[in-house]
Amino acid sequence: MTTPPAPGPAGLRTPGPADLVVTGCTALTHDARGEIVFVDDATIVVREGRIASVTAGAPEDPPANAAEHLDGRGTVALPGLVNCHTHTPMVALRGLAEDLSAHSWFNDWIWPVESNLTERIVGLGARLACAEMIRGGVTTFADHYFAMDEVAAATAESGLRAVLGQAYFSSQGPEGRAASLDFALRQRGAADGRITTCLAPHAPYTVDESDLAATAELARDHGLLVHIHAAENREQTANSLARHGRTPIEILERAGLLDVDVLLAHTTGLDTARDLPVLRRAAGRAAVASAPRGYLKFGWDTTPVRALREAGVPVGLATDGAASNNTLDVWESMALTALVQKYVERDPTWLTARQALDHATLQSARAVGLGDEIGSLAPGRRADLVLVDVTGPHTQPVHDLAATLVHSARSADVRTTIVAGRVLMRDRALLTLDVPEIVAELNALLPDLVDRSHGKRIQEYEG
Amino acid sequence: MTTPPAPGPAGLRTPGPADLVVTGCTALTHDARGEIVFVDDATIVVREGRIASVTAGAPEDPPANAAEHLDGRGTVALPGLVNCHTHTPMVALRGLAEDLSAHSWFNDWIWPVESNLTERIVGLGARLACAEMIRGGVTTFADHYFAMDEVAAATAESGLRAVLGQAYFSSQGPEGRAASLDFALRQRGAADGRITTCLAPHAPYTVDESDLAATAELARDHGLLVHIHAAENREQTANSLARHGRTPIEILERAGLLDVDVLLAHTTGLDTARDLPVLRRAAGRAAVASAPRGYLKFGWDTTPVRALREAGVPVGLATDGAASNNTLDVWESMALTALVQKYVERDPTWLTARQALDHATLQSARAVGLGDEIGSLAPGRRADLVLVDVTGPHTQPVHDLAATLVHSARSADVRTTIVAGRVLMRDRALLTLDVPEIVAELNALLPDLVDRSHGKRIQEYEG
Repeated sequence: MTTPPAPGPAGLRTPGPADLVVTGCTALTHDARGEIVFVDDATIVVREGRIASVTAGAPEDPPANAAEHLDGRGTVALPGLVNCHTHTPMVALRGLAEDLSAHSWFNDWIWPVESNLTERIVGLGARLACAEMIRGGVTTFADHYFAMDEVAAATAESGLRAVLGQAYFSSQGPEGRAASLDFALRQRGAADGRITTCLAPHAPYTVDESDLAATAELARDHGLLVHIHAAENREQTANSLARHGRTPIEILERAGLLDVDVLLAHTTGLDTARDLPVLRRAAGRAAVASAPRGYLKFGWDTTPVRALREAGVPVGLATDGAASNNTLDVWESMALTALVQKYVERDPTWLTARQALDHATLQSARAVGLGDEIGSLAPGRRADLVLVDVTGPHTQPVHDLAATLVHSARSADVRTTIVAGRVLMRDRALLTLDVPEIVAELNALLPDLVDRSHGKRIQEYEG
Repeated sequence: MTTPPAPGPAGLRTPGPADLVVTGCTALTHDARGEIVFVDDATIVVREGRIASVTAGAPEDPPANAAEHLDGRGTVALPGLVNCHTHTPMVALRGLAEDLSAHSWFNDWIWPVESNLTERIVGLGARLACAEMIRGGVTTFADHYFAMDEVAAATAESGLRAVLGQAYFSSQGPEGRAASLDFALRQRGAADGRITTCLAPHAPYTVDESDLAATAELARDHGLLVHIHAAENREQTANSLARHGRTPIEILERAGLLDVDVLLAHTTGLDTARDLPVLRRAAGRAAVASAPRGYLKFGWDTTPVRALREAGVPVGLATDGAASNNTLDVWESMALTALVQKYVERDPTWLTARQALDHATLQSARAVGLGDEIGSLAPGRRADLVLVDVTGPHTQPVHDLAATLVHSARSADVRTTIVAGRVLMRDRALLTLDVPEIVAELNALLPDLVDRSHGKRIQEYEG
């Protein structure tokens, strides 16, 4: 591989010592066609928060001259995982509402309990979620929730990269949409540029068509991504057809939301005959986030990944919130995507380990609107990467490294997590967040959070 | 909870200091009806390889007097997991044959490569598998393979408990069955009683009906469990009906194999209308091992757990071999059983976290014929237990400990693994096996193992 000069201003001057050098790892890189190429005994040089070079063999810049040197022997370096759709503060509700239908989960538990949310709980939940994600090798997350200034603060503190959107329902009146825009414009570029923002209407069944159309206009005017739940399950699509004569995807199209960059969460209820031609026309703008664990748990169908792939729509990996998914483990989402897609297509030769890694890297980066910035260990991209230990008994021997990563390795094998060249976890130790302190404070607030005696809920689920 | 005297000879004398005491953990126990009861701040006392007591609060036997004391604060103690069906030496082939149909997997890869097996490779693979299982919280495994004296030696060395059977095909002639019996009688009770044995005919499609009938007779004569693959997928059942006019389960019944204790691997191809009445008659003798990951990967249906449960047939958790499953992670099998069963039954209220824990504990113990010995932290049972850390950010907060264990915790959260009162892993460090040494020796033998230029295979798959 070649070593171009570092991009931007740094490329104009003689490079000084690197900020970070990783040596001796196997690096997961992509060739010009986007195919995965493993580079053995690789040296990765990081300058000013970006990858400067990935080379095989001896380091271009001796580690002694680097500000920080990581010995990567026994590990695979890969682009940090991207959680393309989550609600980080919902870790506070992890395990609260189990083994329920979606109706009961929303109406009897989650939406009543969310009436009790405070900014402090949102902030603590987001911090706990960031800790979990850093330990699981996630370097970027797309979050869709309330009180998002708290999540932005948690993002800044944690060192992670994030794509943040303030959620709203039409039941909030025009103030909901205005607050979402205000957040998006205020926080865009915050945390040293690690925060990008979006507009976050909740879903076509909770945001009416005029509100959706107004959102599309704001997105166009301000160059913002839109992040929205869409066709979450088959029942929602059937209800949408019964009520409006249109599928959720067709509603989004008519509102103009498929003419802007849009991230669609779930789409397990896609009506492939009607919706795929629509999405094919939106290819290049529309992307999907898939969180397969929760679909199994609710007994739903899964995202039709093969059809979306054929339509040119990127499918990124996600976990949804921990209140339904129980975990923010994107590594597990990668394995489950491979396994569940093989099962639903009844084709064991489909969604190979390399395809799963493609979804975890390039496709996830595109899904959250950062396709040129992250998702590949390539010169000029942000230095967001993880080192994964493959020396454990469960990952040996290695006949096929892609299969080892997807089907044998686990999130707990991530030893080191790096965002923008900064080490956030070294040898499993978190460097930016104090978990016992966060958990102690959060636990003290839980009794008030889970109290449902008030009989209120923030919305009614009739999806 | 009460504390009866230690069982057997020890109960007759004044108990001396305990061999092992665990304090401060939350213990997963079962009440008289087999329902799961969590005991907070529990003390577990172990004498002579068995649980002497599990009590809430202050220890009955002060830790200072115990030969070994483990501080269990922040952990849940639960019965060690049971891998009810695996082929441990196949870890040597992990990742070798990926993204293939079962036909191609068997005929083009696994059965040609198994022509090259040596006793040394079997022994090394079994040791590596034992290391993986100890780290994953497995304390007992049921293994069905070749050169099983090597697996018995690995079991003895590792400290694990195992139910071992020497596999055979009718193509080997009567010698195959005779060798299986010889192994079962010779190794029964080995490794200080940690090894129990069984007869291991491969499957109804590779072992003919007279051989199966002779096996049933041997099982009856010698009081041995029979462990066999049965109705692995729908295609096998259809082929069996076409060739013999009977399902695989009906073939086993006619051969008398459902009149003895029998462990049926997989049964994803069960013909519920024909087979369930047959299995209902065999309830109490027949059990099933389910390895859901591999079924997804091959695009097969899954084990019909609900129907088997209703028929009174225990369903234990398994991983199959790592050549198809990629991992021996029974913790993952527990989570996948819950998730996949909800999906295939389209019922999110079914296979709750507590039901999943029931499969992982009592039902798995019964499946491998050790229903009175393991599977519960109850006085008199073998002291096979694991301590699972639930303080990590991905397992906090805890609203429902059963859900935390099944849906948030991972095999890597197992800190300590104990078999027969002996600590095999302490704080993630293996005490009985040297993984780097095993891997180095195994890697040197892999080129000869994977050579398929000879054009041979040990069997033809026409399942």
